[in-house]
Amino acid sequence: MIPDFKKLDRAFNPKCVAVVGDKGISDYMWLKGQSEFKGKLYSVQLDPNELDGIKALGVKNYPSLMDIPEPVDLVIVAVPRPVAPIILDACIEKDVAAAHFFTSGFAETDTEEGVTLEKVLTEKAAAADFHLIGPNCMGIYSPGAGIRQIGRQPTGFSGPVGLISQSGTHAIAFAAAAYQQGLDTNKSVSFGNGIALDAVDYLEYYGQDPGIEAIGMYMEGVRDGRRFLTMLKTVAAKKPVVIWKGGRTEEGGRAIASHTGSLAVPQGIWDSAIKQCGAITVRDLQELIDTLKALLYLPPVRAEKIGITGGSGGQSVAIADIFSEAGLKVPPLTQESYDELETFFTLIGGGYRNPIDTGNVNRLQMKRILDILEQDAHTEHLLLIMMIGSFSRGTEQFDRDVAMLDDLRKRTAKPISVIISTGMSDRPMDLRDAVVKLRDIGVPAFLSLDGGALALRNALDFYDHRSRA
Amino acid sequence: MIPDFKKLDRAFNPKCVAVVGDKGISDYMWLKGQSEFKGKLYSVQLDPNELDGIKALGVKNYPSLMDIPEPVDLVIVAVPRPVAPIILDACIEKDVAAAHFFTSGFAETDTEEGVTLEKVLTEKAAAADFHLIGPNCMGIYSPGAGIRQIGRQPTGFSGPVGLISQSGTHAIAFAAAAYQQGLDTNKSVSFGNGIALDAVDYLEYYGQDPGIEAIGMYMEGVRDGRRFLTMLKTVAAKKPVVIWKGGRTEEGGRAIASHTGSLAVPQGIWDSAIKQCGAITVRDLQELIDTLKALLYLPPVRAEKIGITGGSGGQSVAIADIFSEAGLKVPPLTQESYDELETFFTLIGGGYRNPIDTGNVNRLQMKRILDILEQDAHTEHLLLIMMIGSFSRGTEQFDRDVAMLDDLRKRTAKPISVIISTGMSDRPMDLRDAVVKLRDIGVPAFLSLDGGALALRNALDFYDHRSRA
Repeated sequence: MIPDFKKLDRAFNPKCVAVVGDKGISDYMWLKGQSEFKGKLYSVQLDPNELDGIKALGVKNYPSLMDIPEPVDLVIVAVPRPVAPIILDACIEKDVAAAHFFTSGFAETDTEEGVTLEKVLTEKAAAADFHLIGPNCMGIYSPGAGIRQIGRQPTGFSGPVGLISQSGTHAIAFAAAAYQQGLDTNKSVSFGNGIALDAVDYLEYYGQDPGIEAIGMYMEGVRDGRRFLTMLKTVAAKKPVVIWKGGRTEEGGRAIASHTGSLAVPQGIWDSAIKQCGAITVRDLQELIDTLKALLYLPPVRAEKIGITGGSGGQSVAIADIFSEAGLKVPPLTQESYDELETFFTLIGGGYRNPIDTGNVNRLQMKRILDILEQDAHTEHLLLIMMIGSFSRGTEQFDRDVAMLDDLRKRTAKPISVIISTGMSDRPMDLRDAVVKLRDIGVPAFLSLDGGALALRNALDFYDHRSRA
Repeated sequence: MIPDFKKLDRAFNPKCVAVVGDKGISDYMWLKGQSEFKGKLYSVQLDPNELDGIKALGVKNYPSLMDIPEPVDLVIVAVPRPVAPIILDACIEKDVAAAHFFTSGFAETDTEEGVTLEKVLTEKAAAADFHLIGPNCMGIYSPGAGIRQIGRQPTGFSGPVGLISQSGTHAIAFAAAAYQQGLDTNKSVSFGNGIALDAVDYLEYYGQDPGIEAIGMYMEGVRDGRRFLTMLKTVAAKKPVVIWKGGRTEEGGRAIASHTGSLAVPQGIWDSAIKQCGAITVRDLQELIDTLKALLYLPPVRAEKIGITGGSGGQSVAIADIFSEAGLKVPPLTQESYDELETFFTLIGGGYRNPIDTGNVNRLQMKRILDILEQDAHTEHLLLIMMIGSFSRGTEQFDRDVAMLDDLRKRTAKPISVIISTGMSDRPMDLRDAVVKLRDIGVPAFLSLDGGALALRNALDFYDHRSRA
């Protein structure tokens, strides 16, 4: 279909939302999920046994969508599958902007009833040009608007990331992990079977959305390959698009068939097509998060020689191995740098080759060491390993380090990244605090050496493709 | 040297320990680190400024090692490097069983003073056949004896794992992560420059130690390759040996030179030599932990066809991809299994191909699903994905699942593994509780799909080699 951006804007930033068919047995998950939504929230439910429960939530219930006395922007549908076509008719008649069908049990079940019902929904939506999200999906997460896929999702902010996911599980996992790691979502959609609005439509919509600066996707298959690739090329020229494709293997392809019913695409063909469009392929959720972070918070990365410090001796070996295996370089420094380091560096328990091992008192000289790495003609990118314990004893030391990096970043054209090690912290949310402080001075922080190395490699490939295009 | 097991037994399970040269500036890290040690702990310190601090710890101080009025099993040496040879002389004169030299600044610094001093220590130790651990290392962690490398290490238990690490950072990181993940240490040693006792000596010692059932190693280089490989072959025939080798790349090799001064070994030669000895090579700390877990807690794994359940639809795709890419198989089930599943399985929001997706109400039928997977002629190994949230609301559901797995494990010859997903739990120690409960019924639990897949692949390779040998 041709998406109507105004309707999608209304769906992602609604003034009025109706939930159809929410039930006590599922703890009113959809009504409760919207508890942070500041607009008008209504329920549509005919079952008399549910009315007390809905009333207890403070939500006004109507027996029919048509009875709601104002325009509705987004309908969330959680009815049994045989009822789905009737609700779709009502949505069309009420002229709602879009409806998210959580209801599942369609073509993905490979049953006659499911396939037939999906065909009915597909045809009705197509005839009315109706903006149907799903079915068999978790729908919209729009943190700025307070629209959630599950009740635990954070709200009250609006980040730079747009996520498009064929899987509800991965959409929810992304939202949680990305937030904890300082990567904030602007809009996210889980679209399941995608019988009306498909991946390509959300891609087009996010492509023109000025609030979205980078796009992440989880895909299992593609309906119209040609249209998708054309759109991908257009959007990837404007903002980074990072794609995790499920079903790289025969086994994965078989699992896809019973998940969303998509046809698997041979991985080799997929990878090279995506690459030609200027988008980036990744292998899992963490690489998706790390790569988006590198693309959003680093200046264009064009060089592979990294100057590294902040770890201990044993870490230095692992760091050098991991970055080198990711196709980056950890070169020896210039003789000038070594001469200068020699004047003050404590060699006992430390080493000043690259990576510069500061497991000992040299850590106190970090500013000087970073300045030398920055000035060194052999480095093109700087990487600092930072250990954070629990912040329960205060964040003064960490804040001082952030101020030092901020000062350095303002003075240098070389990109700066951080690998953050949380050690045995028992307060996981300290992590977000730390990553956000670094992000806000233009320094992405990664949670693992592998993650940082892959993200930098992907960023390099992205800017390399862009400069050649 | 030829290690004297009796002396090493005294060092790892000492009755009397002396710390030489601990200081207030390092917060008496070695004396405080031994606070859980139940034997006799003494300090040796000449500096009058330190005596009050040591007294405040309740530790008796002597001006000289010779003054301690009883035999000493382990000496921990934290003096400046020029004093190290004098302390070594005293250790030899006092006839202590072994001494751990934390002191660094020797050959790894590539300075004349460092190289010369290391030569002096090496010669003195060799002449006296003295059991010197290090220098430039964190020494012994022996949780059953309460001997620690840092104060935060858990004590009061004795697990099946022996760790040998050339890096103190990695030894400490292993102890913490392994414990949190339910893999308990028996003995661990960080040996740094290894000028007297080397990796091969600890390997021989652990090989004959009946308390150690599996050995993990982090190595940067090898002094006598032939002796090491011969010993490795002997020990690996008795118990699994899993080796993480730092310096796989040119960059990593360069980092090693300034860390422990070891010579790098070309990775291809190393890998094939290790494999021929029947040991296993891994790429990082997490793979080391996961592989030891698989080898300790699974029966011999001889088959690659896995029946999987417990995840959602999107997870199933990722699971199939990851296990297939690790060289394992996730085969379709028999028609018989499908026929039986069809009689009760809710296809709406679920799918019963392999992996069997139980994101919906089918989760309530887990026992029946596992029984079908177990009976299926196409599966040779069973894998369950378990989600644990915070245990703050009680562990009843988890405990019921463990009882169900325990019952299944007693009825089947097929190995059972678990992938545990902690979600957004804010109580990380719940993890250990969960993993230990599973471990104690003979089911290893891994923290990630990748980790589990690699560990099972490594276990398969290990038993494959053993059956051919």
